[in-house]
Amino acid sequence: MNAIVTDKTDKPWEKLHELITGAGTEEILAFFDFLGAAETARTISRIHPEDQVRLFSILTPADAADIIEEISDTQAADLIEDLPPEMAAAILEELDSDHVVDVLGEISDHRAEAILDEMDIEGAREARQFLEYPPDSAGGLMVSEFLAYPEGLRVSDILKDLQKNRETYTGYNVQYLYVTEKDNRLAGVLRMHDLLFPSKDAYLRDLMIKNPLKVSVDTPLEKLRHFFEEHRLFGVPVVDGDGRMQGVVLPEAVEEASRKRSVRQFLGFSGIVGGEEFRSMPLLVRSGRRLSWLSLNIVLNVIAASVIAMYQDTLSAAIALAVFLPMVSDMSGCSGNQAVAVSMRELSLGLIRPNELIRVLLKEAGLGLINGAALGLLLGILAFMWKGNFYLGLVVGSALAANTVVAVMLGGILPLLLKRMKMDPALVSSPLLTTVTDMCGFFFVLSFATAVMAKLSGV
Amino acid sequence: MNAIVTDKTDKPWEKLHELITGAGTEEILAFFDFLGAAETARTISRIHPEDQVRLFSILTPADAADIIEEISDTQAADLIEDLPPEMAAAILEELDSDHVVDVLGEISDHRAEAILDEMDIEGAREARQFLEYPPDSAGGLMVSEFLAYPEGLRVSDILKDLQKNRETYTGYNVQYLYVTEKDNRLAGVLRMHDLLFPSKDAYLRDLMIKNPLKVSVDTPLEKLRHFFEEHRLFGVPVVDGDGRMQGVVLPEAVEEASRKRSVRQFLGFSGIVGGEEFRSMPLLVRSGRRLSWLSLNIVLNVIAASVIAMYQDTLSAAIALAVFLPMVSDMSGCSGNQAVAVSMRELSLGLIRPNELIRVLLKEAGLGLINGAALGLLLGILAFMWKGNFYLGLVVGSALAANTVVAVMLGGILPLLLKRMKMDPALVSSPLLTTVTDMCGFFFVLSFATAVMAKLSGV
Repeated sequence: MNAIVTDKTDKPWEKLHELITGAGTEEILAFFDFLGAAETARTISRIHPEDQVRLFSILTPADAADIIEEISDTQAADLIEDLPPEMAAAILEELDSDHVVDVLGEISDHRAEAILDEMDIEGAREARQFLEYPPDSAGGLMVSEFLAYPEGLRVSDILKDLQKNRETYTGYNVQYLYVTEKDNRLAGVLRMHDLLFPSKDAYLRDLMIKNPLKVSVDTPLEKLRHFFEEHRLFGVPVVDGDGRMQGVVLPEAVEEASRKRSVRQFLGFSGIVGGEEFRSMPLLVRSGRRLSWLSLNIVLNVIAASVIAMYQDTLSAAIALAVFLPMVSDMSGCSGNQAVAVSMRELSLGLIRPNELIRVLLKEAGLGLINGAALGLLLGILAFMWKGNFYLGLVVGSALAANTVVAVMLGGILPLLLKRMKMDPALVSSPLLTTVTDMCGFFFVLSFATAVMAKLSGV
Repeated sequence: MNAIVTDKTDKPWEKLHELITGAGTEEILAFFDFLGAAETARTISRIHPEDQVRLFSILTPADAADIIEEISDTQAADLIEDLPPEMAAAILEELDSDHVVDVLGEISDHRAEAILDEMDIEGAREARQFLEYPPDSAGGLMVSEFLAYPEGLRVSDILKDLQKNRETYTGYNVQYLYVTEKDNRLAGVLRMHDLLFPSKDAYLRDLMIKNPLKVSVDTPLEKLRHFFEEHRLFGVPVVDGDGRMQGVVLPEAVEEASRKRSVRQFLGFSGIVGGEEFRSMPLLVRSGRRLSWLSLNIVLNVIAASVIAMYQDTLSAAIALAVFLPMVSDMSGCSGNQAVAVSMRELSLGLIRPNELIRVLLKEAGLGLINGAALGLLLGILAFMWKGNFYLGLVVGSALAANTVVAVMLGGILPLLLKRMKMDPALVSSPLLTTVTDMCGFFFVLSFATAVMAKLSGV
């Protein structure tokens, strides 16, 4: 045991490499058990892709599926993509239906097709159907592991079924039983403990709660979140356009999807585009994806900097201004980003609608005037103290004040405008905002300076 | 109905104001029903604080609690804080235990105390106890609404209790029943449908699964997430140091807490500090909180800009450089922020440990060299084409290349270092990074330029 403990604190992937090349299934599983979920994810991400394939061919599909469940979808998709399709299919068959779709959704289409072709017919049909729904809709979030029985059955029939399929139902959320009528249409719902009391001969149709709450397959994530905020339920049935029972959405799936959405938002905001990046990915993939974002930014930067180029004479005459140009643009960028964040939160909480531009503009204008005055005064005093030139202070202070007002107003409405244009505010707000606040910042400093040039010469 | 529809698309808060001043409870509730959860949140946030108090004094505590459940915790806390303590207490008594704690956790301590004093003794005792646990631990996330029975009871006793308290248990997650031994210590677990089959005379101790999976009250959020990734359960019992049953953590609570954490991360990253900001808050509160963050930034900006001030002579001699200073610092900031985001994700997924600095440095150095070369070449060529001066291109290109390497390496390790120092990477990484990359960027451009000054004069 002691040897393993040392390995754990050191580099478990070296130990795993040894086990993969030498040891049997049991030792490998014992090692993962010992590592726990967090370390397992880290360890698997560090072994060589060839070792990953070898690892999954040593394990049974069920054991491999257990490991897949412990790591993130992106990581799982990376792994699954490298496996031969028949091996990948065997593993996916062991996962919950919503998990299968999560993983397949992150794999390239033709690769996913190849895997689906190797899966058993029923599983593949279901996965194909689930993949058709947008990932952030009830159809994309539901599980197919639920209990549904025709209304004509008796309690005794259900008890028999529950007894018989005990093992299968272990992974099901059996808080509720759904009752269906003709064509598999949802007719009612029962709580599991409603089965405890009535006579064994009672019919489901007489026990069930009729017209249960339900959502349709295309219900978007936002609505689902509000649904579970409004109704503290442990699952909601999902029906298609004809009222046929399709699946069940669990509240944890909704929360998980919301969390993933805010992670994507954070990554997009930071310029990580095209999905997650892990440092275990190939260098050129990482570099290329980051560059794609940076090259857009460099173009925007060139546009902004061209304002400075136009005012070279002013700048030559008062070189001290060059110190303040990056400060004014930076500070305004910060102010604007605060307003962007507030708008994005208000949008996602439903506290504001994309068409309420005027409200946001007014609210931000007031705040911009106060913060602009405070920051402008501060920077103006600093500038005045540095060079002893009142006009230098006046120019940079009023430029920062003016640019702060522009930045917060623009930052506030950008997410609303982008949402109306069906663009992703997280991805686009920040670079657009920065470009405009840079340009305006440079313009305010240099044009104000040009206006009082006589007073500034030589600073 | 038509009149209401128009109101909905227009300004539902005006309608609500009318209803509050004129109508009865039923009309108000019907209006909220009609609005739905999303619109309710927005509408309540827009009415005057006095109207909010009046609204909650018209409604019964149970109806008020329903509304509180539909809005975000911060919004709910804002509302609750404005109510007389006895009214607030009556409403909180209607909420789930975890929800009570969420709301009280966002209210100032002495105000929360005043409310707790007005609550019924049992509820207050429980809330006080729950508030002692850190919000992102099992103790802070658990609910006290679960079913637990002593092991000496028979199935028939349980059925009697379930029958008797049917109403109360409607909001409970009754997927599992917990079985306790002496001193309320957790001894086993039963699934609800395990009660369907055995004889009514069987003892729980003979039916239960012994040594169930459990977590302790101080289990942190990360571990809970890994727990539910590893075990697809619908709840886990929480025990104190003596193994006594304290509550149950549901997977949706874990996901919700993780989502909130990533929202805090996003807000911190954007410079919204001290909690959520909504535009319905008073202007001076919003302005002051944003300014607190901006004033730190302006200090950091002054430090960075002082590098430019030191090189004024170089800048005067080659004024074109001023165009490139903000570009080099901006671009490096973008590159560095990408690395920060990747590190924060890897940390939160457990793919990296805070002490793996060397790994991150090496991984980012490789990427920095490639991206730095690409971006440097691009900017260098642009600079050369603009002024036809090879050395100008060389200076700005190599400065951007060098600064990109610095930025990604620093950005990569900053979250790890901050985590080791128990500081919040989301809040501190970005301003620290920007300051350093600004300083280095200015320094590289201006010192490289000074070195080849003779070739640059007059550009």
